[in-house]
Amino acid sequence: MEKEEVVLLDFWASPFGMRARIALAVKGINYEHKEEDLSNKSGLLLKTNPVLKQIPVLIHNGKPVCESLIVVQYIDEVWPHRSPLLPLDPYQRATARFWADFVEKKICSLESRKIWAAKGEEHEAAKKEFIESLKLLEGELGNKAYFGGENLGYVDVVLVPMYSWFYAYEKCGNFSFETECPKLVAWARRCLEQESVSKSLPDQEKIYEYALQLKKRFGFE
Amino acid sequence: MEKEEVVLLDFWASPFGMRARIALAVKGINYEHKEEDLSNKSGLLLKTNPVLKQIPVLIHNGKPVCESLIVVQYIDEVWPHRSPLLPLDPYQRATARFWADFVEKKICSLESRKIWAAKGEEHEAAKKEFIESLKLLEGELGNKAYFGGENLGYVDVVLVPMYSWFYAYEKCGNFSFETECPKLVAWARRCLEQESVSKSLPDQEKIYEYALQLKKRFGFE
Repeated sequence: MEKEEVVLLDFWASPFGMRARIALAVKGINYEHKEEDLSNKSGLLLKTNPVLKQIPVLIHNGKPVCESLIVVQYIDEVWPHRSPLLPLDPYQRATARFWADFVEKKICSLESRKIWAAKGEEHEAAKKEFIESLKLLEGELGNKAYFGGENLGYVDVVLVPMYSWFYAYEKCGNFSFETECPKLVAWARRCLEQESVSKSLPDQEKIYEYALQLKKRFGFE
Repeated sequence: MEKEEVVLLDFWASPFGMRARIALAVKGINYEHKEEDLSNKSGLLLKTNPVLKQIPVLIHNGKPVCESLIVVQYIDEVWPHRSPLLPLDPYQRATARFWADFVEKKICSLESRKIWAAKGEEHEAAKKEFIESLKLLEGELGNKAYFGGENLGYVDVVLVPMYSWFYAYEKCGNFSFETECPKLVAWARRCLEQESVSKSLPDQEKIYEYALQLKKRFGFE
């Protein structure tokens, strides 16, 4: 096999960046990690993602792939033999894509940030919807070890990064994920037993400090 | 091959439904078309898409697939041999997915509806962003016949339904797509030369009448 050149433009606290990190770790791919300063984006980021100007960008042999869900699918397609993330069956693939899309729209949404970045009614509405969405995900998980079944799959990689933000959400939102969605918390802890996940997720306390800084900077307090 | 049972829950004016219609037509799949009344959704729709309660839903041998982008990819994966929509190369697939996602977020967005459903500054801002997004798509199209190259591909199927809404946008927005994005209009007309597209898209005048009804019903006037 020719020598692969893999570069990831990333930001430590981004759940979208974490997805790419986990997928690369699951596949055992060595890569160069480039941390972006999102308030002063690099020329490389602006050049490789001129439309959205967002991380993560995976640059594989000089070619950029953008948008985290697309990056994870790309990684799975380029390195399909080790730890497949998407199932082979088209119906199971469609189901995994549906839930990944649901996570994107309901869990990693701007709306859900209002749990830690808004107050009063807006905060309460966001919290209620967020918890309802997590309960739907618990229903989909059922009694499986992972959304992917016996092994970590696409939906697991897409959702588990949010666990690093749970502590910040709880502290700012005055509620407990353990009480609201115990099965999902158990699932997240199971994911964290895998090195590919544990080494890709930052410490929850650090994310909480970062959330507090953001609240201050954007005047949410 | 066993007998296939294919049902599409659809709504005539929905660009999301049109995507599924085109993809099925491209593949030459016979199916039962069930028109939904969106103000009084059927039990079948609520049962097959309990999370989002939206059309299109493709029910294939009793199993439901939801979300139009996922439906189109599912159709391409189940019937891969006739007129492939996504390319085989992972990088080209990622690029097609990127632009389909862009269409979803920028062209078929709630924001873009403000062109016909809002007034004043809000209308002008939506119009400006919409046209800028179309120009980015023109850049991606370049000198190719279709986004898919020589043949209709994934991005074509995802974007071309919006052409049926262009006349409504122009009449309500007081501008001309022909002037703003002539290459994209030429591309849409080229797509319409294909029967799979022409038979799946409703008449632009009918969509305009429908948009006027919606404006009235939701008090946008």
